[in-house]
Amino acid sequence: MSFEVIAWTREGAVRLLDQTQLPAAEVYLELRSVPEMVEAIRRLRVRGAPLIGIAAAMGLAAAAEQAARQGGFAAGWLDEAARALGEARPTAVNLRWAVEQVRRVGEQALEAGEAPARVAARLRDEAQRIWDEDAAMCRAIGEYGAALIPGGATVLTHCNAGTLATGGIGTALAAVYRAHAQGKAVRVVSCETRPLRQGTRLTAWELARNGVPVTAITDSSAASLMARGEIDLVLTGADRIAANGDVANKIGTYALAVLADAHRIPLYVAAPRSTFDLSLAHGGLIPIEERAAEELDAAPGAEVYNPAFDVTPAPLVAALVTDRGIAKPPYGAAIRRLFG
Amino acid sequence: MSFEVIAWTREGAVRLLDQTQLPAAEVYLELRSVPEMVEAIRRLRVRGAPLIGIAAAMGLAAAAEQAARQGGFAAGWLDEAARALGEARPTAVNLRWAVEQVRRVGEQALEAGEAPARVAARLRDEAQRIWDEDAAMCRAIGEYGAALIPGGATVLTHCNAGTLATGGIGTALAAVYRAHAQGKAVRVVSCETRPLRQGTRLTAWELARNGVPVTAITDSSAASLMARGEIDLVLTGADRIAANGDVANKIGTYALAVLADAHRIPLYVAAPRSTFDLSLAHGGLIPIEERAAEELDAAPGAEVYNPAFDVTPAPLVAALVTDRGIAKPPYGAAIRRLFG
Repeated sequence: MSFEVIAWTREGAVRLLDQTQLPAAEVYLELRSVPEMVEAIRRLRVRGAPLIGIAAAMGLAAAAEQAARQGGFAAGWLDEAARALGEARPTAVNLRWAVEQVRRVGEQALEAGEAPARVAARLRDEAQRIWDEDAAMCRAIGEYGAALIPGGATVLTHCNAGTLATGGIGTALAAVYRAHAQGKAVRVVSCETRPLRQGTRLTAWELARNGVPVTAITDSSAASLMARGEIDLVLTGADRIAANGDVANKIGTYALAVLADAHRIPLYVAAPRSTFDLSLAHGGLIPIEERAAEELDAAPGAEVYNPAFDVTPAPLVAALVTDRGIAKPPYGAAIRRLFG
Repeated sequence: MSFEVIAWTREGAVRLLDQTQLPAAEVYLELRSVPEMVEAIRRLRVRGAPLIGIAAAMGLAAAAEQAARQGGFAAGWLDEAARALGEARPTAVNLRWAVEQVRRVGEQALEAGEAPARVAARLRDEAQRIWDEDAAMCRAIGEYGAALIPGGATVLTHCNAGTLATGGIGTALAAVYRAHAQGKAVRVVSCETRPLRQGTRLTAWELARNGVPVTAITDSSAASLMARGEIDLVLTGADRIAANGDVANKIGTYALAVLADAHRIPLYVAAPRSTFDLSLAHGGLIPIEERAAEELDAAPGAEVYNPAFDVTPAPLVAALVTDRGIAKPPYGAAIRRLFG
């Protein structure tokens, strides 16, 4: 990859590629405070369920580093910072999971009476561990997922579940990158993904940069391509997966799932274990973020309904591709076997 | 209506509301030549299957008026002008139908040796007749269609099949306007309709201007609303309908038809008789316009596939609402009965 999605600066700040400015410009931000990171997550400067978890974890560590330099942590600082970061967006479970990992490490260090600089270093190590672990999970997902992609296949994907969404080579796109590296002559059709156009701006950009043939379409064009037999499989990421296999992912995934089912095309969903929320029995319990009306720029006088995600019922998912292997129906048992 | 979509100027030019600038600005254009009208149709300054037919017919008359003032018609002028206008866009059959009506009237007048000004006046009268007839067909479609809309219904529509697409109160939206006038408390959900956003720019604009409650959504959000039981029926216009009832309409209509079918929601298609092409046995024979890649503004290095229309097979259409009444399956016989 010729771009760096996230990195530490020498001073312990977080360096982020501002994804709202892609593909027109590659602008990097340096963030060192909790409010800065919350803003970057809310505004989708950094996005993708695994990556916002990593970014929030790194942001918490960077803010702790600043606090340590300025004399230490006020009472309640760690809990308050973790709460603010964890609430930046509601749907992806990775965010709260990653922040909680880092918070707990900090809490233990504070309770042990460690010096502020030492506490901050522990937070940073834990954030780095989450990042490294995500990169390893991406590689594993890529291996398992590539096995589902036949040679010469055309893969339809939605939103961005690639390098720009994770700490590694992606989830859905990891499988594509691996299949490409294996010489399978895979092609990708990338749905635009309105309103924020992650498909045409981000997925098309990173695939083209990595030499994978990609065709951009409007979200509405997917069905005709399916009807003409031009799509072999649908492959997406996920923002949260319930214990029964129901999948919350970018708005439009459910539509693609119904369309794929009607055209007898398999839909696969790729996600690391940090995306599974075994505390929720089914997808109806996943909170769905509604975003600002302005994203649609509709005519004055019209109401706007702008949900960022939808829920695809497990029966429409042909397989879940995880870092521990492939889960097939019935998902409840398969997920427990992998992650229980 | 507080806006005028199309009109004659005193000098016999065509005055058009430039729909590419809506809803930000209401800009009116005055067109008097064939190339100007071809450009306006190609760039979608004027759009909607019935309205481009009317606009092309009026444009041919306006150009004839100019030619008459400048001394008359060169040999072959009429055929060449009609050909250029008829080929401005390929999918909507109304365009060629309307231009051919006007061309034939002109041809007869020229063969009868009438003076240029008299020929031009005949063209203008014929264009006006087509416009008046379309307005009457819209009223009839509105009456028939309103009967299909229950009180309190939420109607999902795609693209724009309203005042901005016809010479009258629309096709699909005519039914909505009539139901609204009948006090039926109808609500509309308007799909954005990428890439040119006719749903959020035009349908939302004209419904809000006319006091009909309207909610704008991304194209990808329709499926979740259907799953939650929030859509009672889908109602669209058409660009061409084959003899067997297959419907070519704005890209995304086929996706909505499959989704509506999966959620047991009826899809109705409203169109005047000028939209029916009985020379085509089925929808696979309808030419589908592919538009410029630039409309998607995808990342460099990505290919773009940007069809403007798709074909919905007749079995997914619950009824065709026409100016002569409602056609139900089997459509071949029903369409012959209405228009044969």
